[in-house]
Amino acid sequence: MNPLRVVLVAPRNPLNIGAAARAMSNFGFSELRLVNPYEVAFREARSAVKAQKILTDAREFPTLAEAVADCGLVVGTTSIGNRALEHPLRRLEYGGRLIAKKLATAPVALLFGSEKFGLSNEDLSHCHWLMRIPTREEHGSMNLGQAVAVCLYEIIRNPAAAKTKPEPRRPASAGDLERLTTLLEDVLDRSGYVHARVEGSTRMKIRRLVRRLNLNAHDAEVWLGMLRQIHWKLVS
Amino acid sequence: MNPLRVVLVAPRNPLNIGAAARAMSNFGFSELRLVNPYEVAFREARSAVKAQKILTDAREFPTLAEAVADCGLVVGTTSIGNRALEHPLRRLEYGGRLIAKKLATAPVALLFGSEKFGLSNEDLSHCHWLMRIPTREEHGSMNLGQAVAVCLYEIIRNPAAAKTKPEPRRPASAGDLERLTTLLEDVLDRSGYVHARVEGSTRMKIRRLVRRLNLNAHDAEVWLGMLRQIHWKLVS
Repeated sequence: MNPLRVVLVAPRNPLNIGAAARAMSNFGFSELRLVNPYEVAFREARSAVKAQKILTDAREFPTLAEAVADCGLVVGTTSIGNRALEHPLRRLEYGGRLIAKKLATAPVALLFGSEKFGLSNEDLSHCHWLMRIPTREEHGSMNLGQAVAVCLYEIIRNPAAAKTKPEPRRPASAGDLERLTTLLEDVLDRSGYVHARVEGSTRMKIRRLVRRLNLNAHDAEVWLGMLRQIHWKLVS
Repeated sequence: MNPLRVVLVAPRNPLNIGAAARAMSNFGFSELRLVNPYEVAFREARSAVKAQKILTDAREFPTLAEAVADCGLVVGTTSIGNRALEHPLRRLEYGGRLIAKKLATAPVALLFGSEKFGLSNEDLSHCHWLMRIPTREEHGSMNLGQAVAVCLYEIIRNPAAAKTKPEPRRPASAGDLERLTTLLEDVLDRSGYVHARVEGSTRMKIRRLVRRLNLNAHDAEVWLGMLRQIHWKLVS
């Protein structure tokens, strides 16, 4: 499990606390901390499917200073906008990398403010720097549970996975493709699709058409089987 | 606005439909489609702050085939697990890139199944390929609204932003740092912190200590001002 501390400051809606816990469970995080939550009944949050343990283990703190005391890096999230920020502000793509690196040597706290007001300037002053999710300027403020999910995803995101090509399937052999082409031509011929006078160019068109299908070996077999059956029906 | 169609198949909870709409608005997507939604009252979804227009414009379709008919690429999301998948399955990091590229030439549909059952095999058969969010194996299934948010984030994510260094602040000059060091030494000396016999090595320690602060020019000024005041108090 990832040692990141997800810190919700003054959350008001138990559903959001549950949603935060669920995203944490999805992405392998277990340390949930709540500062002065509005509803002490957060443990009942119903949307937290399979995340009960995280909610049961969640710790409450009366102040933010106490909630982050053991952390080597404290990062606040913000949808920016109205506040004149005195802190370095980093986009999630970049900030997420910094957090992932820092986690190798020290606990990190990631702060989310209340649904209505976000983090206060007082809260922000506890942060080393701030991070923002690249939302539209016209609608920057995200739902709390969704913001937590997106930030945690970026932190566990594997940049190498973006480049990995999926396992290639064995492509159809040129021989199979040529058998397919010949059979298709024959079927089209018997169906009256191919006109004798354009036969030569049509043959090449069909050959190219079949190659552009990028068939794998298995699918070429299936298509051959289907065409054989149609062909059998046409000649019988 | 991004031309991606977000297609919710048989969603059951209006709150999730609203949450999907909100994430769409946050990340600049406007085309929401619903196939056979369980609650037709989805337009009232209350969590859709600032996303009313998306909900009002959302179109309902009786079948998935109709909902994706105009799309050049149809991608299904899955938390995998129990289903033997006959489709290529791509991780979000890679699939998101493919979708972003494809959107330049054709509309793309991104499908999300119902909260309880996900996409059926029948639904999946309409897809060119499948995509999964890299959640933990032990708890793969995400909340619908959060899954939509994470997928849309990956699609609008800017890989270049992960490498961009934040604007560097002007660093403190060596002269300022040396002034700060001298002043700090003097203050420590007058406070009785520095013992005469280790003075030489302490001086170097303090010099290194001050350099490791990585002060910017503005902050060095502030620290100098604070130390000058303390110094003034100590000598007066």
